[in-house]
Amino acid sequence: MTEADLIRLFVSPFLPDEVLKGVGDDCAVVKVGQESLLITTDTMLEGIHFDLGYFDPYHLGRKLAAVNLSDIAAMGGRPLFATLNLEWPPSRGLKEARDLSSGLLSRLSEAEVALVGGDTVKAPRIGLTLTIIGRPEGQGPIYRQGARPGDIIYVSGPLGASGAALELLRKGIRPPEPLLRAHLDPQPELNLGQQLARDGLATAMIDISDGLGIDLFRLCQASGVGAEIHASFIPYPEELDLLPLENPPLFYILAGGEDYRLLFTAKEERGAEVQGLGAYPIGRIVSGDHPVLIDEKGRRRNISFAGYDHFR
Amino acid sequence: MTEADLIRLFVSPFLPDEVLKGVGDDCAVVKVGQESLLITTDTMLEGIHFDLGYFDPYHLGRKLAAVNLSDIAAMGGRPLFATLNLEWPPSRGLKEARDLSSGLLSRLSEAEVALVGGDTVKAPRIGLTLTIIGRPEGQGPIYRQGARPGDIIYVSGPLGASGAALELLRKGIRPPEPLLRAHLDPQPELNLGQQLARDGLATAMIDISDGLGIDLFRLCQASGVGAEIHASFIPYPEELDLLPLENPPLFYILAGGEDYRLLFTAKEERGAEVQGLGAYPIGRIVSGDHPVLIDEKGRRRNISFAGYDHFR
Repeated sequence: MTEADLIRLFVSPFLPDEVLKGVGDDCAVVKVGQESLLITTDTMLEGIHFDLGYFDPYHLGRKLAAVNLSDIAAMGGRPLFATLNLEWPPSRGLKEARDLSSGLLSRLSEAEVALVGGDTVKAPRIGLTLTIIGRPEGQGPIYRQGARPGDIIYVSGPLGASGAALELLRKGIRPPEPLLRAHLDPQPELNLGQQLARDGLATAMIDISDGLGIDLFRLCQASGVGAEIHASFIPYPEELDLLPLENPPLFYILAGGEDYRLLFTAKEERGAEVQGLGAYPIGRIVSGDHPVLIDEKGRRRNISFAGYDHFR
Repeated sequence: MTEADLIRLFVSPFLPDEVLKGVGDDCAVVKVGQESLLITTDTMLEGIHFDLGYFDPYHLGRKLAAVNLSDIAAMGGRPLFATLNLEWPPSRGLKEARDLSSGLLSRLSEAEVALVGGDTVKAPRIGLTLTIIGRPEGQGPIYRQGARPGDIIYVSGPLGASGAALELLRKGIRPPEPLLRAHLDPQPELNLGQQLARDGLATAMIDISDGLGIDLFRLCQASGVGAEIHASFIPYPEELDLLPLENPPLFYILAGGEDYRLLFTAKEERGAEVQGLGAYPIGRIVSGDHPVLIDEKGRRRNISFAGYDHFR
């Protein structure tokens, strides 16, 4: 059984017209009366997605919010309301719960999101489900599916920091501050996502949650196109060259995951506007069906490998 | 630590005007542009909320949906969209997942609700979180807080069947069919809830999920009133008198839980309209702050006892 097998079982066989997008993008998009809504939800389980050995409850709360906010950012949306389902062991102290709450509420209030409800249940281990409802800005939502050959591919910032930090944390090494921060307290790029939607700049967008390789592959699949990106154009933190890591920087860039940067495409003629927003061009959409990386020596590599599948 | 301590930690210290109701009713109520939305969410964990020893996956899926749909019914709402967060052990077969999905999707499609997204994660035990978004009908939403002294109190159907069935199932006894069905496959009362909202009939409403005692207490607290109900007026299935149960019928009526009937109040002058919808009058709202039961011998009993607290 793969994760995809499981997901397929829970897809409605038909959807009403009010569902503009079901499974298969960063958020579901639905219409209620005259309004379009974005809906996203994530579950994080102790022992699977986090380990309180190196994740304090405060930052866990912030990250839970950030992961969901990043999905709203990736549609060019404004987040509005959240619900929390808290699975909590009665043996845990009230202090851990208070720290978790204060991290979660701090990150939500930075994004002007109100926590409006949820459910609290007894459980053997901590489990957290956050659901956020938002609205697309301007000309949004921006889907994964609008990229066309000739479009320029951008990332919103350096990649690989979070994956490298996780490797060090698992070995009991404290990563340098910027890498640690990238892993424990990622910054959802709401302002950039909203600006791209208001200005109608991005033709397609996704957030980089599992690594540039698989997430660019997803964008290509949704758009029915291929991509060529240049290794030397991809920004990454210099620490990846300096630290005693198990792999070269490109590994963390392509497959490290949890960067929560935006990956998007735009028409070439709007390049000056996009770069004015601080994004980095890394290549171009081409006809085809998968992404190719061109390395420093001009060699072409297929990078459409799948991410890690927990269920396989 | 009590469940209330924990919930209090996750309540936003302040809420924007767009939040018409946060924690403290059957659904949160929010405004997006011109539209009001209802949001409800429930988590059910294996070993805590259900046991696949007597709950087959198909009915588990149906019940997960019914529990959430009942919350929408209790606001006088129409459910529209759902998301599912599935915690699933890789060791479980695909057949169990398929049965769960088919139960869930059958109940959702009966209510014309589209499953639009979610999250799937590996877990040691099955955990299910369903979130439903809906809209209030007519003059709704109907809150818990609008009951006034003089209003008549109604329930939408017989009570106690589910709690009695659970007692038998836990002892390995198969309950008679109507009781078994009440526990495994409760019917959310969407039509009645919507009718009450369209006609502006109910002054306050809640669904009976934890038992008539605690749920009537909650309605009284939210409305700032007391209540007098008559034991002899409360409908219950005759099986409660005939089966070898550990307690008298009144126990299952007041504290059995999981009936998912609607409990509501209406002005006395609209009694004919309400009874035309098939609801049962069981007493009257009075000034005060808690519900009182008047038994067959005219004795008054305080029934504002708290439900079972998993965290205490």
